Amino acid sequence: MSPLSEQAGRIMAAEMAEQPTVLRRILEQGAPRIRAVAEQISARSPRFVLLTARGTSDNAALYAKYLLEIRLGLPCGLASMSTTTAYGARPDLRDVLVITVSQSGGSPDLVDSTKAARDAGAITLAVTNNPDSPLAAVSEHHIDILAGPEKALPATKTYTASLLSLYLFVEGLRGGDGAEAAVLPDLAAELLARGDEVKQLASRYRFAERMVITSRGYGYPTAKEAALKLMETSYIPALSYSGADLLHGPLAMVDNISPVIAVVTDGKGGEALQPVLDRLRGRGADLVVIGPREQVAAASAGFELPTAGLAEELQPILEILPLQLLAYEVTIARGQDPDAPRALAKVTETH
Amino acid sequence: MSPLSEQAGRIMAAEMAEQPTVLRRILEQGAPRIRAVAEQISARSPRFVLLTARGTSDNAALYAKYLLEIRLGLPCGLASMSTTTAYGARPDLRDVLVITVSQSGGSPDLVDSTKAARDAGAITLAVTNNPDSPLAAVSEHHIDILAGPEKALPATKTYTASLLSLYLFVEGLRGGDGAEAAVLPDLAAELLARGDEVKQLASRYRFAERMVITSRGYGYPTAKEAALKLMETSYIPALSYSGADLLHGPLAMVDNISPVIAVVTDGKGGEALQPVLDRLRGRGADLVVIGPREQVAAASAGFELPTAGLAEELQPILEILPLQLLAYEVTIARGQDPDAPRALAKVTETH
Repeated sequence: MSPLSEQAGRIMAAEMAEQPTVLRRILEQGAPRIRAVAEQISARSPRFVLLTARGTSDNAALYAKYLLEIRLGLPCGLASMSTTTAYGARPDLRDVLVITVSQSGGSPDLVDSTKAARDAGAITLAVTNNPDSPLAAVSEHHIDILAGPEKALPATKTYTASLLSLYLFVEGLRGGDGAEAAVLPDLAAELLARGDEVKQLASRYRFAERMVITSRGYGYPTAKEAALKLMETSYIPALSYSGADLLHGPLAMVDNISPVIAVVTDGKGGEALQPVLDRLRGRGADLVVIGPREQVAAASAGFELPTAGLAEELQPILEILPLQLLAYEVTIARGQDPDAPRALAKVTETH
Repeated sequence: MSPLSEQAGRIMAAEMAEQPTVLRRILEQGAPRIRAVAEQISARSPRFVLLTARGTSDNAALYAKYLLEIRLGLPCGLASMSTTTAYGARPDLRDVLVITVSQSGGSPDLVDSTKAARDAGAITLAVTNNPDSPLAAVSEHHIDILAGPEKALPATKTYTASLLSLYLFVEGLRGGDGAEAAVLPDLAAELLARGDEVKQLASRYRFAERMVITSRGYGYPTAKEAALKLMETSYIPALSYSGADLLHGPLAMVDNISPVIAVVTDGKGGEALQPVLDRLRGRGADLVVIGPREQVAAASAGFELPTAGLAEELQPILEILPLQLLAYEVTIARGQDPDAPRALAKVTETH
């Protein structure tokens, strides 16, 4: 292996560092437009929501599913895209809101399935980082996540930008103004300044052969996104499970040589995760917690989140930040370049 | 490590071997009752379907999602159970069919979420292996999958029994009789007699540190179930991805030391997977195919399925069989007992 270039990871590091600015831009410039879209869609009174996305955007879509179900009582599903694109299914989508999330807005299968949904009577909304994209063009409504160009292959700022945009959209559907989100840019900057703590955590995973990441409720999309980020940068097989699913089988794989990261939100999701954490501690698992102070204190190690007074549904926008940094630091520690994972292209041309 | 007892894996082996008998029992004794349930539910004209399950049953639920979307045009979602059980969400479920799949019918969170769904106006259907279970009791409708008691911790016969029961249910909703399924018991017996071929395949994974399993469309639930089976018996981290998602990130993890198993259905799902297979071959991946003869011939190795003339939507009931056997054989080869994975209980008490 050749020594790592000084340039390695520069792009990903710069884009992670931009996140407080991007969050502020969404709150200051994007919010009114998001609220207007929400008002137009609210007037159509959708009965169900289908979310369509892939990769990192799929984890953002899952976050929206929790918001829509918990805060609005709207039943949701994540679309299995191939039913439309490969099998030509034409479901009856009257009263259905179809939300497609895509950083580039360029993936042909997303464009095709959104077009098919619109033809089938759905209200269509695209959430992208490119208002000039084909996906934005075929959708009836569009939300621009305003993250600016993303060049590193592992998506970071577009993930948190998608979460905040989707949060504001759902708040808009509820008739709220999303004012609670105003604290996020400062909190994000605070977290991102704690890179040394993350570097410390990263050292324990330098030689890891596999990892398990678990959470429950609002933190579950974070666990999935953290696993994806770790895999696509460091190539460590990182398996993510909701805490309940972990008890239904994969727990057999966890022992003192399979480190576990638990994302513990401060709220009902974190409470529901407690029996899982007790089981993991009982098995002697190496347990790292991303969460509030008392949860970190009861684990092998962790990273404290400043969750005091912050609504549980906003915490995912912060809790992914140390995990992005972790994927970055683990990758550097293993002598690889986080900017350029093998085999990935930025716009994935799936059909 | 102590040498493996002669009894190791006996229970799982016996239950896998029962599958042709169970499938025949469902076709001969279960089908009329399943059709009657389908007629009652069809008369209520559900607009949307939510599927609720965990572990192996969740993979059966995903199979049902493909059937319902493709063959009936009914939009579906997989429920995020914690939205109800942890967060107390009370979505409006009028016109919604909620299907809960559970081998034991005993998991408290499934019982609670089904009860909540019924209170919220949903049509509720439980698919279980125990008509006397609490879940069957709280559901308006019930389908008994007639698999007989399952004692091994890794579920095998209850998985294929759930798939066939769900297939017959969806055919019933369509007004069909499911006659195409009549060939399954004989084909299943034929496949299960080819254990020596699987033992051969298993030898290549004895020292594997990780595996990737991929598919698309109807084969995707098989990929997920195979990964779960491999993990809960052998503890090898097995990652499952739809072929399209694999291209959006985790492909970076695949190289000549990460073996890939592709489940290639004979039909549109298999066609949509071809570009992914080409990419994998181009990267020099060790690619094992479970699928039709010509697909196996183009891979590093494989297991041929007798798919000629068999509708694509029925193939998942067969294609999991060699993968169950593979999980079993890999586990034996690694000196572990497939009957008794560490840390698992048969009825998982998640709340």
